[in-house]
Parts: sequence; C-alpha cells; structure tokens
Amino acid sequence: MAEQELLAVDWGTSNRRIFDIGADGVRQRSDDQGILATEDFAAAIDALVLEAAGRPLLLAGMIGSNRGWVEAPYVPAPAGLADLAQAVARPRAGVMLVPGVLDAARPDVMRGEEVQLLGALATGAIGEGLVCHPGTHSKWAEIEDGAIARFRTVMTGDIFAALKRQSILSDLLAHAVDDDVAFAAGVDHALANADLTAELFTVRARVLTGATVETAAASYISGLLIGSDVRIGLGRLRADVVPLIGDPALCRQFAMALERAGRQTIVIDGADAFVAGARALAARL
Amino acid sequence: MAEQELLAVDWGTSNRRIFDIGADGVRQRSDDQGILATEDFAAAIDALVLEAAGRPLLLAGMIGSNRGWVEAPYVPAPAGLADLAQAVARPRAGVMLVPGVLDAARPDVMRGEEVQLLGALATGAIGEGLVCHPGTHSKWAEIEDGAIARFRTVMTGDIFAALKRQSILSDLLAHAVDDDVAFAAGVDHALANADLTAELFTVRARVLTGATVETAAASYISGLLIGSDVRIGLGRLRADVVPLIGDPALCRQFAMALERAGRQTIVIDGADAFVAGARALAARL
Repeated sequence: MAEQELLAVDWGTSNRRIFDIGADGVRQRSDDQGILATEDFAAAIDALVLEAAGRPLLLAGMIGSNRGWVEAPYVPAPAGLADLAQAVARPRAGVMLVPGVLDAARPDVMRGEEVQLLGALATGAIGEGLVCHPGTHSKWAEIEDGAIARFRTVMTGDIFAALKRQSILSDLLAHAVDDDVAFAAGVDHALANADLTAELFTVRARVLTGATVETAAASYISGLLIGSDVRIGLGRLRADVVPLIGDPALCRQFAMALERAGRQTIVIDGADAFVAGARALAARL
Repeated sequence: MAEQELLAVDWGTSNRRIFDIGADGVRQRSDDQGILATEDFAAAIDALVLEAAGRPLLLAGMIGSNRGWVEAPYVPAPAGLADLAQAVARPRAGVMLVPGVLDAARPDVMRGEEVQLLGALATGAIGEGLVCHPGTHSKWAEIEDGAIARFRTVMTGDIFAALKRQSILSDLLAHAVDDDVAFAAGVDHALANADLTAELFTVRARVLTGATVETAAASYISGLLIGSDVRIGLGRLRADVVPLIGDPALCRQFAMALERAGRQTIVIDGADAFVAGARALAARL
C-alpha cells in the first residue's frame, strides 16, 4: 500500500513549518507566519488548501488553540494515535485540525509535540518510557501502552529569552552559548542544587569579580536553565536512556546535560518525527 | 551632640531617592533619574552639591558601580560600618561615595542595601541573624558581630518583570497581584517543591482548564516566585524571626510567605533604615 500523501503544517506561536509529503518524498519549508503573525486565518487556510491540491491538509500546533484559527479541544492523557485521530476537528472539508493533549492531573498541556512524540513511537524510533522534547517550552513525556501517559512542561527557552530581552543579565546574554566547559559547570550546579533564581545572579557577580569571563556567562546561564530542566524532567524516574526529539542543535545541548546526569541519549530530528506522526494520523482518518 | 546633617542619595538603576537630612527632620523625594537615565553625571552631581549647601553629600547604590559615575570598589564581607566608612570614595570634595559589599565565597554583590542593613542594625531595629531585603534583586544577609557576614541575592523581581514583559505568561501577569489565597497557594507549592520553571507553566494550563480563574493567576505566579525566594533565602538556617527591610508593600508580601514557612517577621521601612545608615556612616567620616 502506498503511503498517504498530504500537506502537513506544524503551526506554532512564532513560526510554522510546512511539509509537502508526496509519493516521491518530503519537501519542507519554514516561515515566520506563526499564529501571532497571522492576521487572516481564512486566507492563510485557503492558500494551504490550494497548495494541497486535493490531498488532505493536516494542521497541528497552536493553530488549534484558543488563540488560533478554530479551537480543537484537548484530548486527555493517556492519549495515543487512535485517541488523537478520533478527536481531530474538521472545520472545513479536507482540513484536519489535530487536538492538543491535556494531562489533567498536573495540569499540563501540549499542542504540536504530540504529533512528533507519537510519530517517533509509530516508526519505532522511540519505545516506552521517558522522552524529552526540548524547546521554548520543553516537554518531558512518559510513553506507556502506546500512548502519552503523562507529561510535564518546563519553561526553559521562554525564560532564557525573557532574561535576554531585559534583565540584569541582558548584556551577558548577548554573547553566544558556545563554551562547553561553562555550560557543563552550569548544568552540574543545577543538577545538584535547587536554587536557580539565586544562582542566576551569581553570574553577574562572577563576571564583576573576574571569576568568569564575560563571554562564558551566557553558556553558564544556559547550563543552569537546561540543567534545572533536566533535574525537574527526570524527577525520580529511572530512565537510563532518554530519547530527545526536536531541533537537533537544541537536542545536542540537552544531550550534554542528560549525559552529565548519567543518562544516555539518542537524538531524533523533530521534522522527521512530525512527518511520521502526520502520516500515521492521516492513515487513521 | 547634634546629629549629623547631610544630603544622602540612594541611587539605583532605575530610580533614586534623595533624603535631605536636617536638624529639623528628614525630607524625602524620589525621581526616575536612576543611573541608566542619567546622561551627564557631572551635572547631576553639581546639582546635588548645590542642594547640599555645604553639608556632606553621601551617595549610595549603583551610582558607585562600574555603570555609574565613579566606581567605588566593593568591600569584602564581613563588612560593618567601620569597613564601609574606611572604603568610602571621595571623588570630589564634600562628596562621599559608599562602596558596595562583596561576598567572595558565593560570589555575590550588593550596592545600596548595605546602608539600610547596617542602618537598621545601628538603631537596634534589627539584631544579629538573618535579615531579608526584598526587591528586584532580593538580598538575604546574615549579620554577625556587627557586620554583614555573608549574603545571597535572588532575582525574584527581575524575573517577574521579564516574564510580564514578554512570555507565555504575559497576558496573565497583566492582572494585579491581589488574591491572597492564590498567592498563599503559590508560596506553599514553592516552599515544598523545587520545580519553579515547570510549575510556572502549569498556571497557563490551570487557566485553560478552568482550575484557576484568570484574575488569580498573577497572584499564584507571584507566590511561586516569592515562595522560591524564601525557600532559597532560608536555606538550612534556623531564623525563627526574620526582619524585612525595604518597600513596605513588598515586605508585606514576603512577610506572608515567611509566615507560611513558619517564621515570624517584623517590617522595617527601607527609607528609615537608609537615613539611619547614612547618618551612622557620615558620623564616622
């Protein structure tokens, strides 16, 4: 049986990625037309329907949120592919809007990552257990019985960006995160200590006293935030091997942090996982 | 002996407070001419010297930092009034620039709070032990043998402002922090759990699921940040009674959080403490 052909969009807050999934392969492009930049959702959807040229159009991510085009209500965890497929909204013929997932116990929510997580599961790239999706809002999900059983979000990227934009650390955060030694020191501190909002300030003191060179400060801060993320995400879970799904560069940073926490990692490109998830969902619709 | 008359300025990053300390009492005013807004330090100092009219002019806070007028190097902790007085810089006749304090072991730094802390100590408003100065950068200092022995900064106010300016929580943080029940719930969570960067995101999920009303979210977030501040600031210290020095409204929030941590508090107005510290320093010069 030939694999399903479709046009699939991972439509986030700031950006979107469009995947043209054809018989001859996948063509991918990105733009900055995230939901906050989209003024006319109807027109944007029209253009995508035209591009789909009769194939199904599958939309995932914040486009289905209460700030997006049409709201596709959350599916409660545990949520597998069948649960998502059953709850897909069809606001218009040929257009499928993927719902997000709700962990009511926490509570916590995700929109978009569920396609990648269940896509990686469908292809066998990941199995049961803990999986991490780093990002503006990192997700740590536990996969059980073929479904997202529970998950937790950590605001790492959002907080890093907010501190960089305007705070006592802004000047230091103008430097690149490219010093692996300083990054590792930040990770190690954050894995062993639960004092993030205090330790962040010591970075300024370290630079003032010459204990840290200014160009290493952003790497140490990134290490502190990602190390805290990993400490919280791992919690008391065993998870000897933790798969990372998402942007490969960001996954590599999280992999360094997880390795310092004594875990092995594998990195799965989020784009591949999204395509696999979109295909698996479309096949069930 | 008549008390020292002087003009004293608590000159911060965004604002400054000017205290005209005369024989007949203290007149106080504030403006937004913090060091980042001051284009011509020489002219600003000239105006203050004129206003001092022959009395000493004492400047404390970020004005003595490497971003201010002239740098007054940090005095290492332990630092008492005599240490500060000895290290006061005199860039110009009649003008005294108070140095900040460095805790080299942490490392950590303060500029401006030391005048309030040692002022409150000089008047007997506080004694030995732990004292908290809430603010954009909260300070938790331990007073021993009449000196600031060690201290720790927590970036609570700075992080709150950065999240409010632009983050997934911005909309929620546009509401006032005025719900004591939600604030207390945030404090309780943060005192018992070291997962701030994750718990912050649950606030969005709570509002989406209706578990929290939107107008209570900012109070819960404030409780989470101040509760974390208190958890870190108390550390393993006993401190049955914790004095709070600073802005009275902010001190009241920290007092609520400390009381939930089983501590008693007293609140000392930061303006009174600053005047006492400025007087005590001037008397030693």
